[in-house]
Amino acid sequence: MINFYIDKGNNSEFIYNQICEKLKKMILEHKIKVGEKLPSKRQLANDLMVSVNSVSTAYEQLLAEGYIYTIERKGYFVEDVGNFINKHSSEDYQFPKHLKEKSIDKDGWLSLSHINTDDSMFPFPKWMNSQQKAIYMHKNELSQISHPQGPLAVRETISNMVALTRGVNCEPEQIVINTGTQPLIQKLMSMQLQNIKVAVENPGYVRIFHLLKSLNLEVSPISLDNKGINFKEFKKSNSDFLIVTPSHQFPTGVIMPISRRIEILNWAAMHKNRYIIEDDYDSEFKYGTDNIPSLQSLDKNNRVIYIGSFSKTLLPSFRISYMILPPKLLELYKKQYYDWSENNTLHLYALHYFIQSGEYAKHIKRMNQHYNKKRKYLINELYLKFKKSIYIKDVPAGLHIFIKFNTNKTYSEIIENAQQEKLEIYTIKRFLLNDELENMNNIQLVIGFASIKEEDISDAVERLYRVIY
Amino acid sequence: MINFYIDKGNNSEFIYNQICEKLKKMILEHKIKVGEKLPSKRQLANDLMVSVNSVSTAYEQLLAEGYIYTIERKGYFVEDVGNFINKHSSEDYQFPKHLKEKSIDKDGWLSLSHINTDDSMFPFPKWMNSQQKAIYMHKNELSQISHPQGPLAVRETISNMVALTRGVNCEPEQIVINTGTQPLIQKLMSMQLQNIKVAVENPGYVRIFHLLKSLNLEVSPISLDNKGINFKEFKKSNSDFLIVTPSHQFPTGVIMPISRRIEILNWAAMHKNRYIIEDDYDSEFKYGTDNIPSLQSLDKNNRVIYIGSFSKTLLPSFRISYMILPPKLLELYKKQYYDWSENNTLHLYALHYFIQSGEYAKHIKRMNQHYNKKRKYLINELYLKFKKSIYIKDVPAGLHIFIKFNTNKTYSEIIENAQQEKLEIYTIKRFLLNDELENMNNIQLVIGFASIKEEDISDAVERLYRVIY
Repeated sequence: MINFYIDKGNNSEFIYNQICEKLKKMILEHKIKVGEKLPSKRQLANDLMVSVNSVSTAYEQLLAEGYIYTIERKGYFVEDVGNFINKHSSEDYQFPKHLKEKSIDKDGWLSLSHINTDDSMFPFPKWMNSQQKAIYMHKNELSQISHPQGPLAVRETISNMVALTRGVNCEPEQIVINTGTQPLIQKLMSMQLQNIKVAVENPGYVRIFHLLKSLNLEVSPISLDNKGINFKEFKKSNSDFLIVTPSHQFPTGVIMPISRRIEILNWAAMHKNRYIIEDDYDSEFKYGTDNIPSLQSLDKNNRVIYIGSFSKTLLPSFRISYMILPPKLLELYKKQYYDWSENNTLHLYALHYFIQSGEYAKHIKRMNQHYNKKRKYLINELYLKFKKSIYIKDVPAGLHIFIKFNTNKTYSEIIENAQQEKLEIYTIKRFLLNDELENMNNIQLVIGFASIKEEDISDAVERLYRVIY
Repeated sequence: MINFYIDKGNNSEFIYNQICEKLKKMILEHKIKVGEKLPSKRQLANDLMVSVNSVSTAYEQLLAEGYIYTIERKGYFVEDVGNFINKHSSEDYQFPKHLKEKSIDKDGWLSLSHINTDDSMFPFPKWMNSQQKAIYMHKNELSQISHPQGPLAVRETISNMVALTRGVNCEPEQIVINTGTQPLIQKLMSMQLQNIKVAVENPGYVRIFHLLKSLNLEVSPISLDNKGINFKEFKKSNSDFLIVTPSHQFPTGVIMPISRRIEILNWAAMHKNRYIIEDDYDSEFKYGTDNIPSLQSLDKNNRVIYIGSFSKTLLPSFRISYMILPPKLLELYKKQYYDWSENNTLHLYALHYFIQSGEYAKHIKRMNQHYNKKRKYLINELYLKFKKSIYIKDVPAGLHIFIKFNTNKTYSEIIENAQQEKLEIYTIKRFLLNDELENMNNIQLVIGFASIKEEDISDAVERLYRVIY
């Protein structure tokens, strides 16, 4: 006879659920044998002093999950469910301690990170308005998965915008929107483009370097000269693809002059399988002079893949970037990629209306002024404090500056000191693709000024001084 | 002498910009020679009858872009910029017509797609409230890039939710949030797990099949029996990974009974490198009985990778899915993946508050009733219209049903007819991983009922009848 305790208290689980779980356990432990007939619903309800309904629901659930089967007019019978093999009992098992994430206490810290931006100036209400409009206008599209490259209307808006601001010439069809520069480069480089070799800037974007290596590509880090990537060294590398940041070299800040641009564009034009990836990550911020036209705008041979991002102009957490593929690569890309979208349509349409309403241009203009003010103030404070012991590469562009100090400290000491001073800074080591450091009497830092509040700049410079000396 | 026409009309470009562009052109075309001295600012301003300021700004821009250089107290000189090589002139070039996207006119169409969901019931205002709260509470985090697996607080919320609704046991650390099942499986399978073989269901999720093949994995499509994946055939395939949809097989709808679950769990427990990926894509929708507990909840050996999605319960365009990695794989994953986040933090925190406020559970409950009503109505209409010529696999779960017709039509005829009738339907052919079709007198369709309006169901069934006969 089947019998077990049913908790009928107010806060107890549903009765049918208790019956169900108890019976499952008995079946799995073979306390009721395979093929054995279960008591009728009425019988079990009587035995357990519960309603027939509860038993009925429990039996239906057991049936749906395959614990029992039914023969019409004969009743319910126990299925042959087999036996679990347990390699280690669950009681033994504990989640490994070293995988536990610790929440990092950033209280009292100041950040000179180059990654973060300024949230205080972001026009959230305007953004939310754009989103409301997106819902109103595109509700039906939201219940579908969008075009894998992003909705066409959004790509049209981006294509018009980059034509205006970056001189980029493209059809909306050439645009692929995704969640960041890294996934875009991953998608691009995962196309089976027969054993290609890629050259990257060194110092440069270390994550891209590792990404390319993880794709089993041959990657050559190329050193920099005063015009950006060293062209002689690059030519020797015998590469097929070149990834550069011509508007504002990351992280050293060099603006690639027209002569070097022509050199690399000519290099690409010489062979049909050569391409340049232009990572235009922060060109929207230029102080004093106008924006530097994109490399893509100078290219007459469809050799440049332009990559733009909204991480610096909007918020990094929004994860919206795009690449513009030359037609030949677009064709390959569309063949290669089994289509699926990684884009949040609501978000992309919000961007669409944010750009169309003029709010995006306004925001960039406002941020240019705001960032320039902080930048000047920071540079001034650095000179005041460090006097002649600091060298600041003062390129009036982007959201970070590149500085050198004469000090006897090692990089590990600097990093340790920064921890103690609660100052988030990044040294050049983070951006070097191989481990050599030319000059050890020379500490080089990449200092972002976007996220720090103006009133905290003096304090940050004081802390930096204690870190360096 | 340098001279050119400057348009001083009201709507003309900034004067400095005109000067700049004209000089650039002259330098690139070598109309001013390398090393030649430019006229002084005052001189050129006089010649062009513009302000000195305009010339000064133009010279600064040319300097920044590297067209000219300056020698202190001597003036400005033309740089050696080189010559462009143009392989084909830009005038010749036209964007290939076949790559142009045509906007598809869906006017008058009815959709029985299994992908789309119902937008009419989505509580947009509640979602926007959650987003407002996310902005209010996490503004500072939005200016940063979040944890690559998603913010810890959001993972905690998901981990609590799946424990409750799916019996899934996990730490928040084990959760990886990303933009869909496909990128998650891509990330998982791109880990260098030495030459693994993967088995998938056939018919099944054809995009995953192609994705795995594109990763150069050996993939075995395994046929189905009445318990889901055919276990004998699967064992013969000698696979290391098995991808299944046990709650509601996609697309045939089979619910995997406990006996088959134990078989595959035991298979995995037998060897340390065996894993099962449980794609739990629509388990939230279950009509009549309770949800079917997840495979992961039965696994005592850390062999199941659980994948959940918000595509069906919220909106497919939101692109939020997650996988729960067993600790051993988590450790490998963290080592392998150079960290970057593809998640929109604002959106994930909106999800977090949407779940925490109880709105998510309410929405699912409401949608269960709504979808069940549509499902019953559709099935009823199908029986009324098709009578005995239809076989409906009536599994009370998910957002689609699987139907068979006796008809002499071929699949190509069906697809052509559906075009003419403006009816979006998907045949089994879309889900078959190899090209064989066992029985050609038998048309099988996967019919989604989520996106169609109740009042359109009769019309859709009428159209379907004309498509089939």
